Amino acid sequence: MNRYEQLADRLRNDIRAGLYPPGQRLPSVRRIAMQQQLSIATCISAYRKLEAQGWLEARPQSGFYARTPEALPPRACQTCEHETPGEVTMSERVAQVMRASHRDDLLVLSTAIPHADFLPVKDVRASLARALRHEDAGSARYGEFIGEESLRVQIARRAVESGCQIHPDDIVITTGCQEALTLALRATTRPGDVVAIESPAFFGTLQLIESLGLKALEIPTDASTGMSPDALELALERWPVKACLFCSSFSNPVGASMPDAHKRRILQMLTARDIPLIEDDIYGEMAHDGQRPRVAKAWDRTGHVLLCSSFSKTIAPGLRVGWIVPGRWRREVERLKYGSTMATALLPQRALADYLASGRWERHLNRVNRLYAEQMARMQTAIARHFPAGTRCTRPAGGFILWLELPEDIDALTLQAQALAAGISISPGPLFSPQGKYRNCVRLMCAVRWDAGVDAALATLGSLASSARQRSQ
Amino acid sequence: MNRYEQLADRLRNDIRAGLYPPGQRLPSVRRIAMQQQLSIATCISAYRKLEAQGWLEARPQSGFYARTPEALPPRACQTCEHETPGEVTMSERVAQVMRASHRDDLLVLSTAIPHADFLPVKDVRASLARALRHEDAGSARYGEFIGEESLRVQIARRAVESGCQIHPDDIVITTGCQEALTLALRATTRPGDVVAIESPAFFGTLQLIESLGLKALEIPTDASTGMSPDALELALERWPVKACLFCSSFSNPVGASMPDAHKRRILQMLTARDIPLIEDDIYGEMAHDGQRPRVAKAWDRTGHVLLCSSFSKTIAPGLRVGWIVPGRWRREVERLKYGSTMATALLPQRALADYLASGRWERHLNRVNRLYAEQMARMQTAIARHFPAGTRCTRPAGGFILWLELPEDIDALTLQAQALAAGISISPGPLFSPQGKYRNCVRLMCAVRWDAGVDAALATLGSLASSARQRSQ
Repeated sequence: MNRYEQLADRLRNDIRAGLYPPGQRLPSVRRIAMQQQLSIATCISAYRKLEAQGWLEARPQSGFYARTPEALPPRACQTCEHETPGEVTMSERVAQVMRASHRDDLLVLSTAIPHADFLPVKDVRASLARALRHEDAGSARYGEFIGEESLRVQIARRAVESGCQIHPDDIVITTGCQEALTLALRATTRPGDVVAIESPAFFGTLQLIESLGLKALEIPTDASTGMSPDALELALERWPVKACLFCSSFSNPVGASMPDAHKRRILQMLTARDIPLIEDDIYGEMAHDGQRPRVAKAWDRTGHVLLCSSFSKTIAPGLRVGWIVPGRWRREVERLKYGSTMATALLPQRALADYLASGRWERHLNRVNRLYAEQMARMQTAIARHFPAGTRCTRPAGGFILWLELPEDIDALTLQAQALAAGISISPGPLFSPQGKYRNCVRLMCAVRWDAGVDAALATLGSLASSARQRSQ
Repeated sequence: MNRYEQLADRLRNDIRAGLYPPGQRLPSVRRIAMQQQLSIATCISAYRKLEAQGWLEARPQSGFYARTPEALPPRACQTCEHETPGEVTMSERVAQVMRASHRDDLLVLSTAIPHADFLPVKDVRASLARALRHEDAGSARYGEFIGEESLRVQIARRAVESGCQIHPDDIVITTGCQEALTLALRATTRPGDVVAIESPAFFGTLQLIESLGLKALEIPTDASTGMSPDALELALERWPVKACLFCSSFSNPVGASMPDAHKRRILQMLTARDIPLIEDDIYGEMAHDGQRPRVAKAWDRTGHVLLCSSFSKTIAPGLRVGWIVPGRWRREVERLKYGSTMATALLPQRALADYLASGRWERHLNRVNRLYAEQMARMQTAIARHFPAGTRCTRPAGGFILWLELPEDIDALTLQAQALAAGISISPGPLFSPQGKYRNCVRLMCAVRWDAGVDAALATLGSLASSARQRSQ
C-alpha cells in the first residue's frame, strides 16, 4: 500500500469510528499534509479516493465532508489514475444470467425487467387491440424509417418534463434502448476507440461496447451522484476518449442520480473537447417521489448529446420500442438505423402512441413509482435481516434495482452458482465491470411479486453468503 | 477502347446480327486468337466480358455459346480484373427513394415492398388478434433472446423444402432480414475487410456494408444465373476477401437464380478458404412455378453458410421479423443480437408462428406467386410498348422485381428526378453499385395494384426516357 492509500485507510477508519460524523468537514488538504508530513498531491489522491468510495463529499469552494453511512455506496472502484482502457471481455456468465431470466422455475432477481404486476398489461393489450384495427394492422408496410409520427409526437411532448425542447423529427424510433445505444456508439466511434463509462455499468452496455471493438474506460462513480466529473476530467486529459456514456438518473446498477451541476459540468467538459455524450435515460421516469429529473440533454446547445431511452421499463419490455434523439449525429444515426434494422415494427409503435395519448401513463407511473419505493424498502429490510454483517446496500431514489456490497471475502460468482442451484437467479458484480471488479457485489431486482417465497429466497441467499464467508475464514 | 473491348464489341455485333444464333457455339479462344491475330489472354478477356454481359454462356469442357436474346441480362458490369474494392459511398438518393416510399401521392415502383393486395393482411390480423390473447399480450417480457420457440419450430420445419436440416435452436430470430445480414457481417468481418457481393446488389445491403466500414468487391453477375463462380474464383485469388454475400434465388435487383451446381461450386471454393457465405434467401419462397429452389446452405457440412431470411416479402413487412441460421458463427451472432437489439418484439413472432401453423401460407404463396408472374408479364408488355427502342428487361422466374437496361445515353438519375416530379418513384441503377455503375438502368417493382393509372404512369416513364434520349442526341 502506498502513502496515499495508507492515508485514505486511516481517514476511512476515522470516519467509521465517528471521528468525523456525516456532514462534518474534514481538515483541509493543506492542513492534513502538514499534520501527516505528506505532500499535498498525496493528500489530494487520498481524499479523491475516499470521495470515489463515497466516504467523502467534495463541496466546491468549501472542502471535503464526511458522508452519511446510510448513503454509503458499494465497494469503490479504483481512482481513475490507476485505470487503463481495456478490452471488455464478455463472460459466459452474462449468457447464463440471460438464459436464467426465462426459466419459470427460478426466482429471477437477476434481470432488470419488472414483473408484469408492475406493468400496465391490460391497458397495453387494449391499445394493441385498437392499433390492430388500423389500416392493414401495421403489417403490410415498413412505415417511416425513423418511426411512426404519432409516437414521435408523444415522445416530444413528454420531453418537456425532462427539460428538453425536442421536435418530433429530431427523434428516431429504435428496437428498444439497446438499439438506440448501438446506433449512438456506431455513429460516434470507430473500433479501437476509448469510451468513458460509469463503473459499475450495465452489462448489456459492456457487451455492446465489446462487440463494437471499443475500449471501455471505467470512471469512478458515486452511488448517489453518478460518474465523478473530476475523475472524468482527469480521464479526458489522459486518454483519447471518443465518447462518454452513462445513465444520468437512477442508473443501472448503483441507482445514482447525477446532480444538475454535474450534468452541466460534464456536458461543458465534453462539448469543449467535441466529445459526444451518450445519455441513457431509460430509468428517468422512475423517481420514487415523482420528481422527474432533468436530462443532460436539457443543457445541450450544440447537439453533442445523444439521448437514448425506451418504454421497456415502464410500459412494455416485450414490445421492443425505444428511441434516440441523436443531435448532430442525426443523419448518421438515421442511415445506420435503416442499414441495420430498416425500421421498427409498426403495431407496437402505434399501440404505444395510443397508450401515451390516453394519459394513463402518468397515473401508472405515479402508482408504480410509489410501489417501487416500497419494494425496495422491503428488500433492504430483508437484506439487513438475512445477510452477513458488513453487507451494504444502495438507497436509490428511483427505479427498482439494488446493488449490494457483501463483505470482501465473499465471492459473488460462487454465490451466483449456489443461488442458481437453490432456484434463485442473481447478477454477480463482475458482470458490471470490463475488468471483472466488484467480486463481492451483487445486483438484485426488486420488482418482483412479493410473497413468502421471496422472503424465504432472500433468507436462503443471506445464509449462502454467510456460510461462504465462514468457509473462507 | 483497348483490344479485348474491340473484340468483344465485334463479337457482340455478330451475335446481335444473328451470325451466332442463340445456342450456337463460338470459335474456340485459340482459333479466334489466330483469326484475329490477338493474344489468347485478350480473347479470353473478351469472351469473359461477353459472358458477364450475358451474350455468351460458358459450358465447361465445351466452349462459349451465344445466348437467347430473350434472356439477355441488363447492362453488364465490368469483368472482375478491372475491379478494385472500394468504399461504398451512400447516396442521398437512397434516402430520397426511402422517403418517397411513404408518400401516398406517388406511384411507388421504387421499393421492394409488395402492395397490401399481395399480402395475407386479413389472416395476419387474425393471428395478431389470437396472439394478443396470449399471456400478457407479449408485452411484459423480453422473451427468449434468440426468439420464440414456436416460431423457430415453424421455420425449421419449412427449411426442409429448401434442402436443409435445421434444428430450431440453430435459428436466431431478428428484426427483419436486414438485422440478420447485419449480424452475419458483424460476426464474420472487421472494418476494412473486403466483402464479395453480386453486382448489381440491393442498395440496403450496400448501405449496410458501408456503415460497417467494409469494402465491397463487385463480382460480375449474370441476370439468370447470379454471381459468376469463375469471376468469384479470380477475385478470391486477387483480393483478401473475408466474406461473400449474395441472394441465391430471385435476387434483388436482377432476379437471378443460381443453378445448384454454381451454389455447390461457390460453397466449396469458399469453404476451402474458410470464407463465410452470407446467403440472403429473402425471395426464396417466391418461385413463379412453385418450385422452391434449394439454398446453398443445403450443401453446407462445415457451418460456413450464414443463411438469412425474413417474412417481409411474403407475409408482413411491418412486423419486422426475420431470422438467421448462423452456422459456426452461432455464439457470436447470439452475442451480437443480444448486444444490439436485445430481443425481437414478441407479439409479431407469436402471430407469425400462429399463421404459419395454420397452413395458410402455402396457399397464399401459390396464389401470389402466380399473380407475380402475371404482374411481371404486364409490366414487361407495358415496357415493350412505351419505352425507347433498345430497352432491355430481365425475365426473372420468381419475385416481383424487374431490372431494366435503357439505351446507353439515358441517365437513370435524371429520369428518377423527372419521374418523381411526375408522381412516380423509381430506383435508379447507380444505387445498386458502390461504384455508381448502371447509370442507364432502373429497378421497377411489379407488386402494385394494376389499374389505368399504372399503365399511364409507365407510358409517362417511357416518354420521359425517350425524350431524355432525344435531347441527348
